[in-house]
Amino acid sequence: MPDSSKYQSCKLILIMMTNAPERENILQAHALIAPYIHRTPVLTSVFLNDLTGSKLFFKAENFQKIGAFKARGGLNAVLQLGENERKFGVATHSSGNHAQAIAYAAAMIGTKAYIVMPDNSPEVKIRAVEGYGANIAFCKNTPEDREATVQTIVRETGATFIHPFNNYEVIAGQATAAKELIEDVKEYLDIIIAPVGGGGLLSGTALTAKYFSQGAKVYAGEPEGAADAILSFRNGKIEKAPYVKTIADGLLTYLGDKTFPVIREYVTDILTVSDEEIIGAMRFLWERMKIVVEPSGAVSLAAVIKNRSLFEGKNIGIIISGGNVDLGKLPF
Amino acid sequence: MPDSSKYQSCKLILIMMTNAPERENILQAHALIAPYIHRTPVLTSVFLNDLTGSKLFFKAENFQKIGAFKARGGLNAVLQLGENERKFGVATHSSGNHAQAIAYAAAMIGTKAYIVMPDNSPEVKIRAVEGYGANIAFCKNTPEDREATVQTIVRETGATFIHPFNNYEVIAGQATAAKELIEDVKEYLDIIIAPVGGGGLLSGTALTAKYFSQGAKVYAGEPEGAADAILSFRNGKIEKAPYVKTIADGLLTYLGDKTFPVIREYVTDILTVSDEEIIGAMRFLWERMKIVVEPSGAVSLAAVIKNRSLFEGKNIGIIISGGNVDLGKLPF
Repeated sequence: MPDSSKYQSCKLILIMMTNAPERENILQAHALIAPYIHRTPVLTSVFLNDLTGSKLFFKAENFQKIGAFKARGGLNAVLQLGENERKFGVATHSSGNHAQAIAYAAAMIGTKAYIVMPDNSPEVKIRAVEGYGANIAFCKNTPEDREATVQTIVRETGATFIHPFNNYEVIAGQATAAKELIEDVKEYLDIIIAPVGGGGLLSGTALTAKYFSQGAKVYAGEPEGAADAILSFRNGKIEKAPYVKTIADGLLTYLGDKTFPVIREYVTDILTVSDEEIIGAMRFLWERMKIVVEPSGAVSLAAVIKNRSLFEGKNIGIIISGGNVDLGKLPF
Repeated sequence: MPDSSKYQSCKLILIMMTNAPERENILQAHALIAPYIHRTPVLTSVFLNDLTGSKLFFKAENFQKIGAFKARGGLNAVLQLGENERKFGVATHSSGNHAQAIAYAAAMIGTKAYIVMPDNSPEVKIRAVEGYGANIAFCKNTPEDREATVQTIVRETGATFIHPFNNYEVIAGQATAAKELIEDVKEYLDIIIAPVGGGGLLSGTALTAKYFSQGAKVYAGEPEGAADAILSFRNGKIEKAPYVKTIADGLLTYLGDKTFPVIREYVTDILTVSDEEIIGAMRFLWERMKIVVEPSGAVSLAAVIKNRSLFEGKNIGIIISGGNVDLGKLPF
């Protein structure tokens, strides 16, 4: 059972980061997680440059540990934990890449991970989380049951809950992908574009562009079938999507109160794309660049292809967010 | 129509390289083709190291121009042509990567390419060859008709025929993949393994190991369903496969009189794998390494996984030969 010192150190963490990450937080996050992540390559494609009329630099986070950028944020949140908190482990709810990220991060520091997954999660994702030695608790596939299950676990074990995106340590971790992109591209980047779901990657990317680029604008790609961020952006408050139905299963959620203000202030625009456009971009990445990219990871390229006049003639950094797909259920 | 000077310079080329490539031929080939190829990355995977108990270095020729190592050999053969030959273009027969390689190489030097393809070739391969501006002649899908069609073209146009593998310039070009692998891996390589079809890549790899490595042994992976090379290797003469039926469609052909002697002398052994083992290795490459690899490109890894005791504890260079697959017809 948790002792009081846990809550003290928890409070300390909260004091450490109650505002959006500063430049120093991102620098510190990068130094902290660097031994546990890949510095993923920046890829280029003559074919896609010709197709879009721009110069594209793809940050290949599909090659990241656990197959997605989420390893960065998960690691930063877990590595920031104090000695007392590490005794009790970490918990989260996710059927996707964040589950693997937390399981992987916990394994790296030798603490327990409790992952709440919907009972209809794909076998391959369950096996991946088990592969890192995490404890899995199944719940019904509703937000309420998911929330209740993780709260019970936190209460019973004293584990620290790590939200998939509405968490400043997570945001600071995700910010390091764009930081590496800026460092590794030897040319000036006019624009960086990332996909948006809950906004952890996007808000981190926007902060990185602010602190570390020479004025790169940040855009987001969002599926038409989960178009909450564009609505929130236009209306100035967090909105849910009118409907949720898209192949980009990493981007189904809506913004949080830690990601939205950053996005509202520092993102230039959000561009929506159809599933057909996402699959088209995915096909280019697979066929022409020979890389396995999940639908969410192709959303940014889809937005660049769709909005040629906006991006033409510019140097564009594109974050390929991940590559975790079920090979038995491809859309081709 | 061809003039006599063409045949003179053609003779000159033959005089230049009537024996297997020397060290200098491979050095020259590399310098010649370098401006037109990618220096493809060497990839590693903790998961696959653990699985095989060895240290694997994957030379990712699926990221090569035209999506396969064949760009190297095609370019070297085409770039070696004299001014007169360039006037009349180049010709070959192939439904696969060699067709694209010759079309690409011809486009690079602004000469004509005549590609004979079976009339049942996949639309995607026809489009790829057309994309490089090559002239396509269709033939029936028999060796006889293919041969007759290309001979007619050579006779009528004066184009130089470039064989897919039984050609020393092609072999010297393919040899550069393993040369880069040796240069870019900072550790001693105990073994290099490549797939074998007609033997262009394998013989080039064996020569490179001889000239440029510190004693790396060379192995080949071959599909059980196209097991001519192992038979030729055992019997000391070029043999055809007992039957030809494999998913590794890049490896259907048998050895030539220029590739076989090199393989016989410098290759340590040939290891066969089933289609199931090829698909299993392919799945690891796609799911774990997030790279798109064609079945032929997974044959070497399949052989390493199958023969654990042979490779355990060693540093192994694995040539991933290509990544050209029809996404609509995957074996998963």
